[in-house]
Order: sequence, then structure tokens, then C-alpha cells
Amino acid sequence: MMCDECGRHETKILSMERNIFKKNSDLAEQNRLWFKAHGIRTINMMSSPGSGKTTLLEKTTRAIQPFGKMSILVGDVQTEIDADRLRNAGAKAQQINTWNGCHLDAAMIARQLGNFVTGEEDLLMIENVGNLVCPAAFDLGEQYKVALLSITEGEDKPLKYPALFHQVDLILITKIDLEPFLSWNREKALESLRRINHKAHVIMLSALSGMGMEAWVDWLKEK
Amino acid sequence: MMCDECGRHETKILSMERNIFKKNSDLAEQNRLWFKAHGIRTINMMSSPGSGKTTLLEKTTRAIQPFGKMSILVGDVQTEIDADRLRNAGAKAQQINTWNGCHLDAAMIARQLGNFVTGEEDLLMIENVGNLVCPAAFDLGEQYKVALLSITEGEDKPLKYPALFHQVDLILITKIDLEPFLSWNREKALESLRRINHKAHVIMLSALSGMGMEAWVDWLKEK
Repeated sequence: MMCDECGRHETKILSMERNIFKKNSDLAEQNRLWFKAHGIRTINMMSSPGSGKTTLLEKTTRAIQPFGKMSILVGDVQTEIDADRLRNAGAKAQQINTWNGCHLDAAMIARQLGNFVTGEEDLLMIENVGNLVCPAAFDLGEQYKVALLSITEGEDKPLKYPALFHQVDLILITKIDLEPFLSWNREKALESLRRINHKAHVIMLSALSGMGMEAWVDWLKEK
Repeated sequence: MMCDECGRHETKILSMERNIFKKNSDLAEQNRLWFKAHGIRTINMMSSPGSGKTTLLEKTTRAIQPFGKMSILVGDVQTEIDADRLRNAGAKAQQINTWNGCHLDAAMIARQLGNFVTGEEDLLMIENVGNLVCPAAFDLGEQYKVALLSITEGEDKPLKYPALFHQVDLILITKIDLEPFLSWNREKALESLRRINHKAHVIMLSALSGMGMEAWVDWLKEK
């Protein structure tokens, strides 16, 4: 079961990976300059599938309306389900399908600048593909990274996916309305988070009950 | 923002990807022959992070004990958390860390054969990395693929991650004890599943309440 060519193969792959990351970083930097030139705050939202990103963005659409113009780019392997949901909630939203890809990259965002993202926005939300591994490695040119962590996923996810949780500016602990029905341990979850990222701001919220939504909108307004 | 070398680059990457998949398939086939020669049933369990794979395997350890010998390989980006949990529940479990990898592959499994997996097992459970994209593309040499889908993740996940849900033999709808507290729509969820995979057997269960556990253990015994 030995793979004779593996060493050579792996070196080649590593060098190509470096190339891909380098190209992505360069493009992300261009995106960042574009956002700066147009005065747009950009947030990259990352989490597991089903942690509540789209529901939160539906509610955020209404809450943020009085304060500024927001557009949303929403990444998924396939389907337009999330963009449809967001448009139904009154948002200006555009789906990006990655097909086999487990993350958005800077090139996918770049293609939207000057097109769907007109430059008149105050805020651009980017909902990444639901995934706790791949999105961590790809800078999109955003100013802020936000991770969502649903309490239904257990307390240990920051420890198991540190690359993602380590780099975010804000952690939203979601579905907090379900706390009475779960054995989820709040102290243990916060301790896991602190071990991986002691600088990130943490907000507990429920997009359904509205709990914590004010703190989230305040954080957005500050930025 | 154009990438002049992208075409050439992409062709090169595609050819390397084909190479990686081909090598993985060959190795998976060798694993499959090894499992067959040793009379071991092997199951690849895939899902989002936090959908309840480890909790289910903790409970399965006790339930399956009277019927045969089980070993568990458990994939995670890093940490030994899951293997520790499983060993505390009385299981024979081995952690495989993928570091930056978002899935297990056939080579990682091959390295365990004749080592941790002695060949005396009746059943080998492989808990893949929590991810709905990457594990779908990597055959491990298993006989059966099982997807878990927690009701807290919403009804649309099979539509959004069809590559994974399309290929599985069994779908376990987990955390069903939370149904009274969620707006989760059972009919809509089953319809999503059926659109992607009308052949897979579906079991609704709660590892915590025990609901559906008998059907799951019966399915395992049948296999």
C-alpha cells in the first residue's frame, strides 16, 4: 500500500498550493483597496452548515435598514436557496455557487465588484460556504471576520477547528433560545473559545427570539 | 483583476486532482479487499460538525457490544477530543488528525490496517471530519456510507450538499428529541432528502432519548 511517487507528488502539490494562496492573497488585497476606495465595510461570515447565518442575515436586513445600505453575497456549493430567502426578506442578495468548492475565494468576490456590488453600499456581508475548515484559509479582502457557533453544535468546536475561530474578530453564539432544552454548558463553551481566541468579542444571540440582536446591530454600526 | 495564468494553472490543477482521486480510489479498493478478506463491515459516517456523530457512537458502543466486536477510527482536523470521549464510553477508538485536511482519505485508513484495526473486528466505524463538502469526494474503501443530518440544521441541507447526500446508503436524522422546540418541518426535510436520494433508508433518532436507536442497531446488525 505504499505510494512511491507520493513524496514528489506532495512537493508539487505544496508548491501549487503556495501559488494558489499567494494569488488569492494578492487578489484579496486588491479587493480590500476597492472596498476602502468606496467606503464599504465588508464582513466575512463563517460557520458550520445550519448554524443560522441566513436566518441572522434575514433579520439583520430589517434591523440595519435605517442605518445604511447593505448588500449580501452568499456562497453555497449549489442552489439559489439562500439568496432567494434573503431577497424575500427584502435584502439585495447575490448567490455565488462554488460547485465542488468548499469555500469562497477572493476571485469570486472580485468578479462582483463594480457589478452586483455597485460601490454605493455602506456594508457588504459575505456569507461563506457552511464549513469550518476551508474558508479559514482564504482571505476575501474583508475588514472583519465573524464566526457563528450554534449551541446545538456542542462546546468543543473552537478547539477542533482552531484555524477558523482563532482569526475572527467577533463570535456569535447562536440559537441561544434553545439553551433550556440542551445539555450545552455555557462556561465550557466560553472557555473553549477563550483558549483559541481571547481577543474576539462574543455576543450570544437568537435571531428567532431577538435576544442579542441589538448588541449585534450595535457592533455593525460601530464598524 | 484578471489572472493571466489561470487557464494554464487550472488545467494543471485539474490533472493533479484527477491523479489524487485516482490514487485514492486505487487505495480505497485495496482497503475494501482487506476488509473483505478479514470479514469486517466498514461504515463511513459523514455530517456537519456538531450533528451528533460522536454521541451516537458512544451510545452505539454499548448497544452493539452483545453482537460483535467494533473498532472506531475518528477523523478530526486536530485534537484527541472525540477518541477520548469514545474510549471513556468503552469503545476501542483511534484518532486520526488531518491537520489542514477537511476529510479522511484512503491512505489514512490504510495506515491503520493490521495496526489499530487488527482484523478481528466485525464492524469498523469511521467517523469522518465534520464537513458536508470534502468527505463526499474520497472513497475510503468502506462498504456503506451513512449521513447524519441534525434537525437543528434546517430542512435544506440535502439540496445544498447533494454530492454527499446522494451517495449514502442510510440517512440518520438526529436530535429528533428537539422537534417540539424547533420550527423544523419534517415533511419538507424528507422531501429534500427524497429529491437527492430516493433509495437511502432513513431513520429518525435521538441518541440522547434513545428514540430510533433500536432501528439503527437493527440496521447495523443486518449489515
